[in-house]
Amino acid sequence: MIGLWLEKNTLLLRNNLARPEPRGGESLIKVLLAGICNTDIELIRGYCSFQGVLGHEFVGLVEDGPSQLLGRRVVGEINATCGYCECCLNGLDSHCTNRTVLGIDGRDGAFAEYLVLPSENLHVVPDSMDSSVAVFTEPLAAALEIQEQITVGQGDRVLVVGDGKLGQLIAQSLAYTGCDLSVIGKRANKLAILRDHGIVALTASEIGSGNFDIAVECTGSPSGFDLARDALRPRGTLVLKSTYAGYLELETAAIVVDELTLLGSRCGPFAPAIELLNSGAIDVESLIDDCIPLDRGVSALERASQPGVLKILLDVANS
Amino acid sequence: MIGLWLEKNTLLLRNNLARPEPRGGESLIKVLLAGICNTDIELIRGYCSFQGVLGHEFVGLVEDGPSQLLGRRVVGEINATCGYCECCLNGLDSHCTNRTVLGIDGRDGAFAEYLVLPSENLHVVPDSMDSSVAVFTEPLAAALEIQEQITVGQGDRVLVVGDGKLGQLIAQSLAYTGCDLSVIGKRANKLAILRDHGIVALTASEIGSGNFDIAVECTGSPSGFDLARDALRPRGTLVLKSTYAGYLELETAAIVVDELTLLGSRCGPFAPAIELLNSGAIDVESLIDDCIPLDRGVSALERASQPGVLKILLDVANS
Repeated sequence: MIGLWLEKNTLLLRNNLARPEPRGGESLIKVLLAGICNTDIELIRGYCSFQGVLGHEFVGLVEDGPSQLLGRRVVGEINATCGYCECCLNGLDSHCTNRTVLGIDGRDGAFAEYLVLPSENLHVVPDSMDSSVAVFTEPLAAALEIQEQITVGQGDRVLVVGDGKLGQLIAQSLAYTGCDLSVIGKRANKLAILRDHGIVALTASEIGSGNFDIAVECTGSPSGFDLARDALRPRGTLVLKSTYAGYLELETAAIVVDELTLLGSRCGPFAPAIELLNSGAIDVESLIDDCIPLDRGVSALERASQPGVLKILLDVANS
Repeated sequence: MIGLWLEKNTLLLRNNLARPEPRGGESLIKVLLAGICNTDIELIRGYCSFQGVLGHEFVGLVEDGPSQLLGRRVVGEINATCGYCECCLNGLDSHCTNRTVLGIDGRDGAFAEYLVLPSENLHVVPDSMDSSVAVFTEPLAAALEIQEQITVGQGDRVLVVGDGKLGQLIAQSLAYTGCDLSVIGKRANKLAILRDHGIVALTASEIGSGNFDIAVECTGSPSGFDLARDALRPRGTLVLKSTYAGYLELETAAIVVDELTLLGSRCGPFAPAIELLNSGAIDVESLIDDCIPLDRGVSALERASQPGVLKILLDVANS
């Protein structure tokens, strides 16, 4: 089969990959559509030292698996867990000590014709939902994770720092909480999409200091972190959403004196994400910049890493 | 009057300081005893660029103030607030935007014969309590602040990183929660004090990775932070208790992937601190290494900054 193979910071289109074999409890999935995430770009840059097929956002058809899933269109949670470590036994499945992670850690990913995942990770996509919508389930779930971790509600002054594809999903999902929401970004086209959704979209210079209760950093840059921190009132909460291979210089006294909370946030719940996408409550069509066949995937990843580009999808079924 | 004056990283004994004049709502306090805190040492090193009389831990006698306080022995909260900023109006008094802080920011401190503070900041010390015990009210309140911010209870695996004077108070106060408590430190004499209180006291090499729900960093060093972070399980909470002029290099992906919470923690509630000290529930006698007259204060501060030294008190009344 063909697929995009990452090895030593180089992404290659390979046409001689072995089709993966499902093991006990796993299903074989023929990938229809996959989404490019910033984490994919960070992995190419060296984050996590991953080697294998890249990609973790997908919609596919179950070709081998339990009867109730056979032939169904599915999306899949990306952490394959052991079931018996302390995290698994305490309901922290996504933190399983022995996990593999689709296209990120120890498990070939979705930028190929086939992938395998534990059947328990799969969620059936409603027939009414386009694949180009369903492919946003994983990133929207990551956006919703924030609300699994902290309560956001009416009256909370919330700032999202970053108008990229994750920032857009986070902003749309937070808008439903009734919070007093603002997003800061750099690019007119992205800010315009936010405004089309009725969200206050500003540039950094329009934000004062200390005016927000909650700030969500999703730029993955130190300057974004500094902006988010500076925007917070004392005892505010700074949510970190970006994974990248880098370090932040943190002025510890500022965290201590202002008694800030910093909160890391990663994978989230699929079921409400599917629900929100299926109902149309979250709009993703405006976030798709292009859909490119898998066999042009290397240049698609390059395109996705350009500033200002939103979601690039990989058409795997028709490549 | 005499006092210890900090100016441009140099601490001087001055004998020509003007006695401070209480303004509206303030009391004049004759200092009896003061305590040296690590923050004082950090201030000398340049943290906060403070200039003035150092010191924020004290017991004193009210010489001028409201009738119900006149002649009474008091301790005092260190943040003098405006009462009308957003923080004050929202119950976040210690974060008042316009605050001055005793011996730290914009207000002369306790290492002098007299200080002034707003009368509302003062708490009367019970007659039964020694001044050498009461002087621990402020640092014990800071230790108790942790429990104002997060719930610590039976079954929680809690690690305190640091066996210094603040770490000792934090450990003793957390022990009452019934949590599964361990402290790591470097010095046999300090670890022995903890063990005398029935607390599990270990060295860093005895702590595995990922075994704690909560870690409290009170060493004020990057290595202490790394130890605390490494000790946490996924979704654990890292409490930062140290103020110092420095930066931490934070591997952001580790915070995001493990969904850790970092929590800055500063000043705490005086009333329960006085209660715990008065009942003898918290032992502070074992933490006092020396009591030195104020006129030998410069060398007392040098002594306090030596590794292995616990609390040094300044005898202000008898200097």
